Amino acid sequence: MVKANEAFMHLKAGYLFPEVARRIEAWQQRHPGEEVLRLSIGNTTEALPPSIAKAMHEKINLLSSRETYTGYGDEQGDKELRRALRLHYEKEYNVALPDNAFFVSDGAKSDAANIQSIFSPSCIPAVQDPSYPVYVDSSVAGGHTGEYKDGGYQGIVYMPCDASNGFASLPPDAHADLIYLCFPNNPTGAVATREQLKAFVDYAHREKAIIIFDSAYSDYIQTEGIPHSIYEIEGAGDCAIEIGSFSKNAGFTGVRLGWTVVPEKLYGDDTFHRLWNRRQCTFFNGASNIAQSGGIAALSDEGRKECLELVGYYKKNAEIIRKGLASIGLECYGGIDSPYIWTRCPDNMSSWDFFDLLLDKAHTAVTPGSGFGKMGEGFVRFSAYGHRENIEEAMNSIKENL
Amino acid sequence: MVKANEAFMHLKAGYLFPEVARRIEAWQQRHPGEEVLRLSIGNTTEALPPSIAKAMHEKINLLSSRETYTGYGDEQGDKELRRALRLHYEKEYNVALPDNAFFVSDGAKSDAANIQSIFSPSCIPAVQDPSYPVYVDSSVAGGHTGEYKDGGYQGIVYMPCDASNGFASLPPDAHADLIYLCFPNNPTGAVATREQLKAFVDYAHREKAIIIFDSAYSDYIQTEGIPHSIYEIEGAGDCAIEIGSFSKNAGFTGVRLGWTVVPEKLYGDDTFHRLWNRRQCTFFNGASNIAQSGGIAALSDEGRKECLELVGYYKKNAEIIRKGLASIGLECYGGIDSPYIWTRCPDNMSSWDFFDLLLDKAHTAVTPGSGFGKMGEGFVRFSAYGHRENIEEAMNSIKENL
Repeated sequence: MVKANEAFMHLKAGYLFPEVARRIEAWQQRHPGEEVLRLSIGNTTEALPPSIAKAMHEKINLLSSRETYTGYGDEQGDKELRRALRLHYEKEYNVALPDNAFFVSDGAKSDAANIQSIFSPSCIPAVQDPSYPVYVDSSVAGGHTGEYKDGGYQGIVYMPCDASNGFASLPPDAHADLIYLCFPNNPTGAVATREQLKAFVDYAHREKAIIIFDSAYSDYIQTEGIPHSIYEIEGAGDCAIEIGSFSKNAGFTGVRLGWTVVPEKLYGDDTFHRLWNRRQCTFFNGASNIAQSGGIAALSDEGRKECLELVGYYKKNAEIIRKGLASIGLECYGGIDSPYIWTRCPDNMSSWDFFDLLLDKAHTAVTPGSGFGKMGEGFVRFSAYGHRENIEEAMNSIKENL
Repeated sequence: MVKANEAFMHLKAGYLFPEVARRIEAWQQRHPGEEVLRLSIGNTTEALPPSIAKAMHEKINLLSSRETYTGYGDEQGDKELRRALRLHYEKEYNVALPDNAFFVSDGAKSDAANIQSIFSPSCIPAVQDPSYPVYVDSSVAGGHTGEYKDGGYQGIVYMPCDASNGFASLPPDAHADLIYLCFPNNPTGAVATREQLKAFVDYAHREKAIIIFDSAYSDYIQTEGIPHSIYEIEGAGDCAIEIGSFSKNAGFTGVRLGWTVVPEKLYGDDTFHRLWNRRQCTFFNGASNIAQSGGIAALSDEGRKECLELVGYYKKNAEIIRKGLASIGLECYGGIDSPYIWTRCPDNMSSWDFFDLLLDKAHTAVTPGSGFGKMGEGFVRFSAYGHRENIEEAMNSIKENL
């Protein structure tokens, strides 16, 4: 008789964001006609940059003629896009990697979840707490963990992030094989200094572990000296995989495009590059060619200028939120090199209680910090994605009604 | 120390199509300036239908304005597209399913590979031999099998397909939990009658197994009475998952869009619907919204008309190949309800030997049948995807030079 995957059965409850959406919908049904101001999901709201839209229109025109139509692309991504990514790393990060280290995908979320599949289920994952739920959930579904108990999964090494360590944590004392790091961090908005990242690279070398570095928000970094790519750290090329995204800088949350860097050799061994290539060739058929045309445009000089303007818009939103929350005495973190403002709930409220209070009193939706891990309890995440006028309205509503 | 996934290490050699591409490239390097006529990969070559291109242009225009821009869509797919799929099944197959049984994805290959992950690694897969390599390779990578030995993986039930059973096979004698079926079949071009499919549904009910039915080529069926969807068979709604694609009828091989039907309950149990939903919410972030707009247009009355014209073009190619090969005495199957012509190699040649001969003498690339399984040895697959003039040139070249 057919049986379900036992590892999947360990997964707790629903995925965070659908649960937030469900609660907002339930609230709206109880309050017909009331508008909810959404500072919850990290969902882009502003128009696609014009040079990117133009490139995608042009691609559709090419596909509309039999002379210029193309079908399946390379599973690893369009050669021109992989080359553009390589040049982008060289130019902006001074990082030299070969084209074949870049694997283009339908987005950072897919890659962050799928990457665990090339590692033995016996590999021990380490995750920041709080963290983006995909690292934990995909580790659970991939059989890398045990049961859920006391707010965490057995077999995962949690790296507590709190105000005392600037939400960046130190490498763990315990052994781990896969270290998930996200900087600028989702949800806390924290960034890591060169020294902090070096400590993780040293830990990885010591433990013969691999760092999975999620750099989806790297374009939000403004503070001088903060690395944008893990490969800016000496020794990272031997031990790190990096996941990047066009979602938050080019507005591709719905268009879907990302990439993963897997160096040809990790610790001198080509196994993981080979397995990721095999995984992509077997489980994937390349990202949409229209999205990839947009990605090439996004990496052009004009595209980069437009993307950074778009990032600037959301960063201005973040500043408005950060200052607004601080003005009513709330304790806030992040929001400088990041679109997220990590906010301590007042009066020792729980995350979901403060979520409900903000929804009820200020008609504003945020994301409860406890959804990101045990250490997230007592915090909520404000997201800077939204039209400026809505961000301002939400902040006014919070100031007036809370 | 970090370790690779042991299951991945069982995978044999490279994925078939990259290997074919590698051999063609090597041949071209030895024969500079010579053109290769490609009847190998099932890669579409004709222009996107105009109503689909128009819808995708319009979607980019909507994304280019902040008033109409949208970010993340539902992981399960756009509501309008899921509804259109439901209506399509009702109208064309007389099959009634709820919208929430349809999960939109970036393509049938991804779904065909990922679907095994919701089942226990202890589940025994059954595959047609020959078959599309993804069912086997993803089962191996998912840990459902043992070592490769004597031309097959231990732990897989192979269902031999040959001329004696019309390349449709019967349900196996042995027990299996997951039965992969593909009709119209890739690579043999065979279709299954209602009675043949009923036998598999009865087998599934008897063994409490689940059928994974790949219907990517259903629009190529012209023979009266051949089912297009497994759900046309009584009892299939309790035991079958169906995977569909826009690749071969709408020309979306590069644009990427497909879907999977997981009924709300299989054998009265909602576990698999719930797990597939959880899998898609955790490992995926929705198909490209631009591609989804194209999918909605493809299912409109005008879109359907254009798609079936496109299918008709490739089917005419298939007829030219089938008649051409028969005229020189080659034994051919398929090519009537399918874009593939399954051809026995002359003089007891092996698949790769005939592949090499066709490449050397007729400058024509095909796909060696042995790449699809042990029973594929001694056959090659001709694909009808190509410009008409190239198909005719290839057939003339084969007739003259073989």
